[in-house]
Amino acid sequence: MLTGIFSPLPTPFGAEGALALDLLQSNVIKLNATGLSGYLALGSNSEAVHVTPDESSQVFKAVCQSAAPDKFVFGGTGQFATQATIEMTRCAADAGCKAALVLTPFYYKGSMTGAVLRKHFETVADQSPIPIMIYNVPANTGINLGPSIVAEIARHPNVIGIKDSAGDVNQLAETVRATRGKPPSRNIHASTASTASRSPGFDVISGHFGSMLPSLTFGVAGGILAVANVAPNECVEIFNLYQQGKVAEAGELHLRILPLARAVTSQYGVPGLKAAMDRLGYFGGAPRPPLQPLGIEQRADLEKILREAGMIN
Amino acid sequence: MLTGIFSPLPTPFGAEGALALDLLQSNVIKLNATGLSGYLALGSNSEAVHVTPDESSQVFKAVCQSAAPDKFVFGGTGQFATQATIEMTRCAADAGCKAALVLTPFYYKGSMTGAVLRKHFETVADQSPIPIMIYNVPANTGINLGPSIVAEIARHPNVIGIKDSAGDVNQLAETVRATRGKPPSRNIHASTASTASRSPGFDVISGHFGSMLPSLTFGVAGGILAVANVAPNECVEIFNLYQQGKVAEAGELHLRILPLARAVTSQYGVPGLKAAMDRLGYFGGAPRPPLQPLGIEQRADLEKILREAGMIN
Amino acid sequence: MLTGIFSPLPTPFGAEGALALDLLQSNVIKLNATGLSGYLALGSNSEAVHVTPDESSQVFKAVCQSAAPDKFVFGGTGQFATQATIEMTRCAADAGCKAALVLTPFYYKGSMTGAVLRKHFETVADQSPIPIMIYNVPANTGINLGPSIVAEIARHPNVIGIKDSAGDVNQLAETVRATRGKPPSRNIHASTASTASRSPGFDVISGHFGSMLPSLTFGVAGGILAVANVAPNECVEIFNLYQQGKVAEAGELHLRILPLARAVTSQYGVPGLKAAMDRLGYFGGAPRPPLQPLGIEQRADLEKILREAGMIN
Amino acid sequence: MLTGIFSPLPTPFGAEGALALDLLQSNVIKLNATGLSGYLALGSNSEAVHVTPDESSQVFKAVCQSAAPDKFVFGGTGQFATQATIEMTRCAADAGCKAALVLTPFYYKGSMTGAVLRKHFETVADQSPIPIMIYNVPANTGINLGPSIVAEIARHPNVIGIKDSAGDVNQLAETVRATRGKPPSRNIHASTASTASRSPGFDVISGHFGSMLPSLTFGVAGGILAVANVAPNECVEIFNLYQQGKVAEAGELHLRILPLARAVTSQYGVPGLKAAMDRLGYFGGAPRPPLQPLGIEQRADLEKILREAGMIN
Repeated sequence: MLTGIFSPLPTPFGAEGALALDLLQSNVIKLNATGLSGYLALGSNSEAVHVTPDESSQVFKAVCQSAAPDKFVFGGTGQFATQATIEMTRCAADAGCKAALVLTPFYYKGSMTGAVLRKHFETVADQSPIPIMIYNVPANTGINLGPSIVAEIARHPNVIGIKDSAGDVNQLAETVRATRGKPPSRNIHASTASTASRSPGFDVISGHFGSMLPSLTFGVAGGILAVANVAPNECVEIFNLYQQGKVAEAGELHLRILPLARAVTSQYGVPGLKAAMDRLGYFGGAPRPPLQPLGIEQRADLEKILREAGMIN
Repeated sequence: MLTGIFSPLPTPFGAEGALALDLLQSNVIKLNATGLSGYLALGSNSEAVHVTPDESSQVFKAVCQSAAPDKFVFGGTGQFATQATIEMTRCAADAGCKAALVLTPFYYKGSMTGAVLRKHFETVADQSPIPIMIYNVPANTGINLGPSIVAEIARHPNVIGIKDSAGDVNQLAETVRATRGKPPSRNIHASTASTASRSPGFDVISGHFGSMLPSLTFGVAGGILAVANVAPNECVEIFNLYQQGKVAEAGELHLRILPLARAVTSQYGVPGLKAAMDRLGYFGGAPRPPLQPLGIEQRADLEKILREAGMIN
Repeated sequence: MLTGIFSPLPTPFGAEGALALDLLQSNVIKLNATGLSGYLALGSNSEAVHVTPDESSQVFKAVCQSAAPDKFVFGGTGQFATQATIEMTRCAADAGCKAALVLTPFYYKGSMTGAVLRKHFETVADQSPIPIMIYNVPANTGINLGPSIVAEIARHPNVIGIKDSAGDVNQLAETVRATRGKPPSRNIHASTASTASRSPGFDVISGHFGSMLPSLTFGVAGGILAVANVAPNECVEIFNLYQQGKVAEAGELHLRILPLARAVTSQYGVPGLKAAMDRLGYFGGAPRPPLQPLGIEQRADLEKILREAGMIN
Repeated sequence: MLTGIFSPLPTPFGAEGALALDLLQSNVIKLNATGLSGYLALGSNSEAVHVTPDESSQVFKAVCQSAAPDKFVFGGTGQFATQATIEMTRCAADAGCKAALVLTPFYYKGSMTGAVLRKHFETVADQSPIPIMIYNVPANTGINLGPSIVAEIARHPNVIGIKDSAGDVNQLAETVRATRGKPPSRNIHASTASTASRSPGFDVISGHFGSMLPSLTFGVAGGILAVANVAPNECVEIFNLYQQGKVAEAGELHLRILPLARAVTSQYGVPGLKAAMDRLGYFGGAPRPPLQPLGIEQRADLEKILREAGMIN
């Protein structure tokens, strides 16, 4: 199974907005020491949409090179056009990513019927050298991929799961139900070598902190969480406490981290995530415009949130 | 604590749409034999909006008379005007309801600011002879009462909790966090007599099946669930399994009941709930127009859902 | 044709919130001197949802008694239940209303399919002693009645039009197109006597100021507008200038009144409308709670808006 | 003034999805014979998001080369990142586009505050060699740029207008009001030479057919309309009839074209637009995946719509 907590790595930019791969690798090396199961290079939190195709290739390689051998690396490869998505997926595979996270195309929302989306994902899966995972994030895309279409796409042997960031536990549960016929994927995290002969399964991963612990109760496998960049140990601890049957303790930690998780996503977005990384000893830096760094008042509020979450004194 | 599972009772209508109190009481008597913690008379599932003030009084009385002594009875009393809500709340109290569930007023959505809603709930709480519980149900009302306003209203000593049917685990968790300063209410279910001297607390109850089990992980106290009318034992079992630390078993039962829970709410609404009750030995009957009974195809689909949930053979 | 500008009369309340019929009649008598085509008693702007059934009957009578003979009076009669709507419609007819404005039922939004809504309106139309007009106001109800269903309902001989407050010119145009097969209704405003033998038609009326002038271009017949209570002459003038081919002048006046129209609807709601009436020599007074009168800053802003619109010096 | 009707040209693709510039130019040459005021290369209807940067440059050049001298050519240049938008804008200028249409960035919706959007547009306007026009299209982007922010951005001397496709006449009117202080732009269409000394103004253009005629009543300057690719003469005729004071005739034509305008936008999207072009003697062809050509039933429905609009026999 694809299990545990993954962090979607922000992409650092240095002077005049240039890609800062050394700083990205420095973040990864620090995170290697945690219990994270792996990383996502070029997801929404990575400003994938602000990075050129050439830069994308460099980011994939930098993350794959610096990730510890036991960390699973996803490459975010979704583009608006199917063909462009296939090309970016090959680029991620070439760089060493173990799977591709493929965003729903979303510009022509009215035309994105279930059949159209299914064909898109199946075409990409057909032509991808690595397994793909569906990426559903309505807050950014304005469209939602529901359980019944997900279940159809899940039948493709090269589709291994979904990162669902909708934050809707009903949808997560229905997706778990609807995709259960497919056996769980090989346990990529714990041991990749010995399981190559097993057919892949389908894992449901929450892309939303607030839904992760709650949805472990009905079979969600883990989380790819923005807040895992700044509170990796706490996120892993929530997951582990739950696995150990200490659900009430997991719930307490969940409530403690919740405001921070909100601050680095819906409240302050990527600028908030980067500011929190700066404050906690990682490299965050400025986002690329149009995104703007946090203002003074927002930084003060973030400071307060970090303190109340016990992340700083 | 207000804890466990409560059922929001449908209101049976007999020939030509007349109120059928005997059939309502017959349902209650059957449900008395289950592990339900209590009932809600005149919530959304009861077609409260289709019942006249005079009929409301009769429904409150009929439920209070037939409920077993260990069952807690809420009366749904929300009206559009504050004064009308107070009058209906007194009527529920007179009939013997132990608390009133007060819907957010919602016609003038643009004017329903936090301050306006707070004043409404505080005025009702001031003048109510019984404790009140906030009722947030955006699917019906089109407005959502967020955690920060709930926390302000929760400080009123006569406000004992919220039934939140939004189905958003993030909101449920933030509401739990924000209202924790207030000590939990006296354990109304287990023993009401000996605890009269304790100050009331504030309990967060899910009004949405899909969020109930998941949100037990962070301190939600139970559920007031449409599906508890037709699968009371299963809902109570989910709650009990969780309390016993058998979370995975609770999760399995959750997934099994999920499609039925959807069928009697978002999918087929009150007509679906009434049809399911008819099929399972309770009295459902026809809703009042404009609601229409399920059609033949919908009944066949519901039959299939009931069978797959293991409720019928 | 039902043509021109109608005002949806606010309902004045006096000391301790009691119905103030004399003040309502005083407002009507003032408005009788304008070019308004008529009135709506008990629409959204009248706080119909804050008025008891007994009070409703009194309001209908008070308006019918004080309206000048050439003014057409609608009674707003929509309730959640079909039967209650029929009863309120009979009450409006008894009071002398010439037609009933029937709101879409909206509590069980998920169940309000086209077929259900159609049956509701047809049942009311069947049993109503006076013609009915559909009332679509998504901002309050959260549901929208689209052109294809409207066109089906429009075939009923006792349905004479729609007040559509959605503010969507595409929908208004498609509704005009879809209901054109039905000949226009008798000219109720100009002369009711001589046209009794003609079959009724179907008129589309805008319930939203911003859409009224624009949609005259494709055949909308007029407006029932909150702002017509406070700027009756200006609203009538826009309509008349358009009819005279002075569209650019109509457009200038439209732009001048637009901020005031917004202030008494989406911006400040019924409290804003009542405050503006007070300021302009009508009786507004306080709304019934939960609605609250405007605060000091809001009144100052409204004052500025009234001045910029040329309504006060 | 930027006035009249403009068509947002679809981008034809030939065998295996390759860019077909000759077919694009053939379409332009046919449209040169109509009364259109100009073209938009690479808007939403052009599948701009399915075209690579290299291809974009070729499209801009092909359109500028084939457009008649009296046709104004906009280049659509909006990208997610500000810097990428500036580069694409320079590319459009180099190709000969007279102005750039700049889409609101929209991936990080929560971070797209008024201040952030304002800075984005001002930075692009500062660095663009050609005037820019704001492009607001919530149906695709999920965000809306309201009148007050538009008015702030409009103060920049290199910002000449907005294409607003929201279809909301209230917003269009408030935008006209709020940007009126700025004098109208030089009449680029009718004569560019003699007006060079006038400071540029700000024009509001509708990107939505259904709002175009209605909003001419309050000062909107014209339309950039998908349906103008397939019914250019009809769209121009609506505009001209209105200018001649024949508003009722314009309204009749508006109602006749309305279903076709819907078919090539919200109903069948770019695939519908391309299919309609094929049917009417232009080159449409297949869109790039994930978009799929219309199916057989959809084509039959489109055929019916074209016939009822009088476009085919």
